[in-house]
Order: sequence, then C-alpha cells, then structure tokens
Amino acid sequence: MRTVTASAKELKVNSVRLIQELEALARFTSVEQPEQGTAVTRVVFSEDDLHAREWLKQRARDAGLLIREDAVGNTFFRWQGTEPDLPAVGTGSHIDAIPHAGMYDGTVGVLGGLEAIRALQECGFAPRRSIELLLFTSEEPTRFGIGCLGSRLLAGALDPDRADNLRGAERGQESDTLSEVRLAAGFQGPLSSVRLKPGYYHAWVELHIEQGPLLERAEIAVGIVNAIAAPASYRLEVGGLGGHAGALLMPDRRDALCAAAEIVLSIERNTKATNAIDTVATVGTCDVYPGAVNSVPSHVTLQVDIRDIDPKRREAVMGAVRRDIDEVAFSRQVKVTETLVNADEPAICSEHIVAMIAQECREHGISAKEMVSRAYHDSLFIARIAPIAMIFIPCRAGVSHRPDEYAAPDDIVNGTRVLAATLARLAMEQ
Amino acid sequence: MRTVTASAKELKVNSVRLIQELEALARFTSVEQPEQGTAVTRVVFSEDDLHAREWLKQRARDAGLLIREDAVGNTFFRWQGTEPDLPAVGTGSHIDAIPHAGMYDGTVGVLGGLEAIRALQECGFAPRRSIELLLFTSEEPTRFGIGCLGSRLLAGALDPDRADNLRGAERGQESDTLSEVRLAAGFQGPLSSVRLKPGYYHAWVELHIEQGPLLERAEIAVGIVNAIAAPASYRLEVGGLGGHAGALLMPDRRDALCAAAEIVLSIERNTKATNAIDTVATVGTCDVYPGAVNSVPSHVTLQVDIRDIDPKRREAVMGAVRRDIDEVAFSRQVKVTETLVNADEPAICSEHIVAMIAQECREHGISAKEMVSRAYHDSLFIARIAPIAMIFIPCRAGVSHRPDEYAAPDDIVNGTRVLAATLARLAMEQ
Repeated sequence: MRTVTASAKELKVNSVRLIQELEALARFTSVEQPEQGTAVTRVVFSEDDLHAREWLKQRARDAGLLIREDAVGNTFFRWQGTEPDLPAVGTGSHIDAIPHAGMYDGTVGVLGGLEAIRALQECGFAPRRSIELLLFTSEEPTRFGIGCLGSRLLAGALDPDRADNLRGAERGQESDTLSEVRLAAGFQGPLSSVRLKPGYYHAWVELHIEQGPLLERAEIAVGIVNAIAAPASYRLEVGGLGGHAGALLMPDRRDALCAAAEIVLSIERNTKATNAIDTVATVGTCDVYPGAVNSVPSHVTLQVDIRDIDPKRREAVMGAVRRDIDEVAFSRQVKVTETLVNADEPAICSEHIVAMIAQECREHGISAKEMVSRAYHDSLFIARIAPIAMIFIPCRAGVSHRPDEYAAPDDIVNGTRVLAATLARLAMEQ
Repeated sequence: MRTVTASAKELKVNSVRLIQELEALARFTSVEQPEQGTAVTRVVFSEDDLHAREWLKQRARDAGLLIREDAVGNTFFRWQGTEPDLPAVGTGSHIDAIPHAGMYDGTVGVLGGLEAIRALQECGFAPRRSIELLLFTSEEPTRFGIGCLGSRLLAGALDPDRADNLRGAERGQESDTLSEVRLAAGFQGPLSSVRLKPGYYHAWVELHIEQGPLLERAEIAVGIVNAIAAPASYRLEVGGLGGHAGALLMPDRRDALCAAAEIVLSIERNTKATNAIDTVATVGTCDVYPGAVNSVPSHVTLQVDIRDIDPKRREAVMGAVRRDIDEVAFSRQVKVTETLVNADEPAICSEHIVAMIAQECREHGISAKEMVSRAYHDSLFIARIAPIAMIFIPCRAGVSHRPDEYAAPDDIVNGTRVLAATLARLAMEQ
C-alpha cells in the first residue's frame, strides 16, 4: 500500500458507474416522471428518502466504508486513514429534494464524493487522515420550514430542543414534529448528541452543481467558491375576515389574499430596488384558508426566502417590506405577523483550500474561476467548525429545483476528479 | 283526516326537535371543532356526507316519507298527497359544507323543510298535492369546481357527460371524476336519468339563511327573495419560469406568483370600480407550484368567483380584468389561460309565490321584506323548470361559510313556520 498523493495521471474516475448511480438514485422519488426531464420529489424521512438511504449505505459498504448515523439521520461514511486519530477530511452533500425538483442538486456531491473515494482507493492511494463522506439530513426546508437541519445541528447552530419541536405548516394543518418523525424513521437518541466536537474536521470540501448560469455562460468547467451568501427566511401570516363570496359586500371585506398579493409585490419591488445582482427574494408558498372558490380568504400564509452576500442589505430590504406591510395592514384592516425562521451569516471560505483546488484544476488541465455561491449549502454551517471550500460545476442554463435541471457527465466527472485530488492532498497534510 | 289549509293557530313547529337535529347534523364533520363556533367540513360524497345522508333518511322514514335517490345522489323525500298524480310542491336545500364552514348554510332548508312537513302532519293537515323535500347533491363547488351540481342536472342545465367527467384540481393533483366518486358512493345509473320531466313541480320554495347582513341590520325576521344574482366562476392558470430561489437572478425571473398577485389585485380593483353594491368578486384559492420556500413559483392556479344581479356588468368587469391580464402576461413574460367554469343567468322569482309568502308572514305576525339573493342556491336552477321563491332568515352579522355562522332559534322557527304555511297553501292549489 502506497501513501503518496494521487497524481493527475493515476486518478481515474469511473464515469459510467457514477452516472448510472445518479440515475439509480433518481428513481427513489414519490412523484411520476413528467414528459421532460427527470422529476424527483424526495422529502426528508419520506419512504423514498429512507429507501434511498438504504441503497446508498449498501454502495458505501461495498466500498468498505464504516457507517455511523446520528440522532437526526446525518450519515457518516468513513474511509479509515493510516492515522485514524487525526481530524478527518470531510466531503458530502444531501439527497433530499423539494417537490418536482431535478436529479443533480445535492446528489452530485454525495455520489461524486463516494466516487472520489473509490477512485482514490482504486489508484492505490492510502490516506493519512480518514476521509469521510457525509450525507446531511434535510438540506431542503420543505418538511420542517428550515434548511440545513442536519448541518446546523452538527455545527451547534440550532438549539436541539427547538429543532425537535419543529413542524411544517402543511396546507394549514399541523404536521408532526421533527422529534416524532425522526424517531419513527429509526433515528434514536437526543439531538444534543449530534453536535460535532471542535476540530472534528481538519478540512471540508463540498462538490455541487452551480444552480446558476455563470459557469455555463463563461464556458468554465469548475467554480471555486470563496464565499456563500447569507440566507434568511420568514413566515408571514395574514389574518383578515372570511365570509361567503356572494354575500360579503366589497366595502365590508378584509380579504387576506388581496393583502397577501400586495405583500408579494412589495417584496419583489423592494428587492429589485437594491439594483444589486446578489439580492434575491422569493415568495415560494401561498397557503389560503379556507381555500374554497366561494369563500373570501380569511387567512393566508406566505413563506419568504431572501438572500444576499451582504446581510445588511438583506435587512434593509426587509425593513422596507415591513413599512409596506404596516400600510397594507392599516388600509385593509388585516393583521400581519412575521416569524423569523432563520437569518444566517455568510460564510467565507478557506483561502488555503481555495488555492489548493485552483492548483489541482491547473494540474488536471481543467478551467476554473473563483465565485460566490448565492444558493446556500450545508457547507455554510460546516464553515463554523472547519475550514471549507466548495467545488461548483456548470448546470444547463443555471436551472435547478426543476425537473429539467441538468449537468453534463463530463462536468460531473471533472468536478469529481478535482474533488478526489483535493481530498487526497488534504488527507496527507500534517 | 282533514284536507283544510293549516291555519296560523294550528301550526306548531317543534323548535326543540328542530334545533336538536341541526346540532346532531353538525356533528357529521371531517374536522375537529375549533374553540369558537361549530366548524363543519362536509364535502360531497365524503364519509361524513354519506353518514349524514343515512341519518337524514332515518329521520324521513320516521316521518313516513317515501325516499327516492337519483343517479347523482339527489334525494327526494315525498309526503304523498291525496291526489298523487298532480305535480308536487317542492322544498329543500343542501347539507354539503365547504372546509371550515358553519352549521346553518343549507341545513336550515333541509331540516326546516322536514320540520315543516312534520308540523303539517301533526296538525292534521292532508295535502292535495304531494309535498316533496329535496336534498341536493353538491351545492358547494368544493369537490368538483362547480356549484349546484345536483340542481343543474335536475334542470337540464348541465350536460350529463360533461358532469360525469368533472374532477376537481386538488392542490395540483388530478382527483377522481364525478362518475368514479358517485358510483363508489353507491349512486348508479346514467346521469341523463337525473333530469326532471317538465311540470314535475307545481311550485318550489327554499328556506335559507341570508348569508348577508341586511335582515339583521333592518331587524326584519323574513326576507322574501324575488331574484337570485347571476354567478360565474373562472379558473386562471398562470405559467411562468421556476428555478432555485437563491440562484435565479431577479432580472431573469418570470415568477408566476408575482403575476398572480397582480391579477388578484386587478380583480378586486375592477370590481370595486363598478361602484355597484351587487357586484362582488373573490379569488378564493391560490395554488402554487412547486410550492417550496426556496423555489421560484413556476405555476399558479387561481379560482375566481364573480356575481352580479346584472350579467352584463359582471361581463364588463371580467373584460377589464382580461385587459389587465394581457398587460401582466406581456410585461412579465408569463402565460395566462382562462377557463370558464360556469356563467349563469339570474333567476326571477314567481310573483305569485312571493305574494303568498308575504301574506303568510302578515297572518303569522312576522315582519318581512322583499330582497335579492346575492348568494346563489339550488333554487337558481329549479327556477328554470318551476315557479320558485325563497324564504331568507337573518344570520348574525351576515357571516356565513365560517365556523361562527349563526342563526337564532327564533328566526329558524319563524322561517320554518312561514315555509310550512306556504307549502300547505301551494299544496291545496288547483
């Protein structure tokens, strides 16, 4: 067994195996396939998510990796190093998918990470530090209203008790708590046990599709992420006056949906008013109560997602929205309550790892540039407990969270090769 | 057995029995009781609807009524007259309820009609014409997107094949057709058999809560409906461009929810611009696809309800909305498609029956006034095949389609007494 760094020539990514596994994983979905693209709906702890996890664990076992699951279902696949007591080098991502999403978001980082480990194994490399592939629970906020659930807990960025009591608002109905759902899925123990010890990871690198159009437009194969934008999300509850759609006269109305419509447009208007390309805001859900064609809406719930590299600018947009909300509430006699779901700081990546990835790209003859991630990732939270960087690959037209999300096999293989080389170099560090 | 008209003195409504039955019927609901009021959710052909029907049939059997169910589940409870071959006198209403509605809408007309028959029986009255209580299927449009399903078919106002293929859009998913649902509920035979023969009813009277504030404000016990406003409903589909909420830049967006918000506000603005108290329009549902906090909405479905005494003014409002929709579609690069679900004519009530009800109110010492119904009812369609009128009673603050919907026992009893006296008088007519 050799303990040398894998050279560009020795390292061979098995592209057929990797693409086949991506396609196999995409079949764990709770919706039918649409005509175009491969739609994936894989909500955390759904039957499909649990089956996909079992499938993945078998792949990891086949590669000789050690498996550990924590209380929230974060799953660690460990390739033991020659000095296993040293802090490990980590990589990983998520496999949960929002409704009617694509097959590359998150999965490229998980299966690319697995393939990177196998490629290093197959070229005879033996790491000094252990290399760990991490599958995060619930990067998507679909079920519990808050993204990066697993990585927040690993980083100590979310109170375990608060986390256990999280529940999603499913179409106006109360749903189960995280505590109930994770126990039913077989993940035992207190959530306080999830937090990683300081210094657990020596370094961390996540491979991911860009989810934006910049790499494709510039015809560049790899983006090296040097910062991750700061996301925030809010729940807005609009309470008005319901009634019969025929009998409640227009002057007497306090229609919650009309008020919500004004708020949706205020959020868009104030976001565009920054004239900053990095400010984006979205109202992604609008649940109407009681939700009948002949009933005036009495209650509407909106979920707002707003992100910026600059958290102050993000706060300024929300400040302007709040002034508009006050006006809407006054003029329409509705009550609007705002709940902050999360407001996170941006992450700054390790210059050392960013430079290392850049060097590996040069050595492998792969074009690369540094960039900011406007989408957030679990790495945003791992950045709080370890030096991190991310490797982005292009995706077609920047499309993500849609069935026609697509990353070309060549790009996936390039990203995996750079990841493998970087993990190998980090695993040999003192 | 006497065959005289029941006099004001002889006719005794059993108020305790009637109120107890209203409360018993309210317990057939598929949602929990909220803190205030009695919330009822009883969607047509749900388990609760079917159980409530069985309960009602037992009450009718106890009163010696003959029972017939047609292919769509309209249920006829017949008190045979002394000349059973003459066209009958009809009364009735519905027991289905929209989500989180109250316990008086429709049910007062059904149980009040049953109590009116029993009160006439108990004072020894024997009708010449049969008196028929009719339970209509699906007055509410909740399940199949179109209101007055049963009465439309009875009146020949809905093509039976179209009806059998109706299905609701349930949160973006395809639901079962009416054909599948009614057969599963045990209602056999072709829908074409539902239509009533011309002249089936000699006359028709429906008792109902006002669902508006006018009677209560004027402190008047009975409203005599002389016309029913013309309702229309539309489905609007807004198709934009989905994508990741972090990565899709604001200038590149074609957000379907922002476009839908502008349409919601256009409908409200153009309706208010008529300055006509009888013009009301409502967007009661707003379904967002894919419906995740971190995904830009690609598709939104709105359901629009618009009513007016004057169908031309109603059309003019929709014309103005369409011009706004064209502008929104152009400026936001979204596609908006409009589907007409129904657009009905107003109904003019029989002057003869209206005058008869007014006379009965005077004889019973009950205050009354003529009025228009802005809510629609099954009587809107029965008006196409028979002379009709309606008896309204006050409801608290005009509230309906809400758990706190309320009608006072005295008002329910007054309405039932006037109904009984009117049915008796009509049943003795040549």
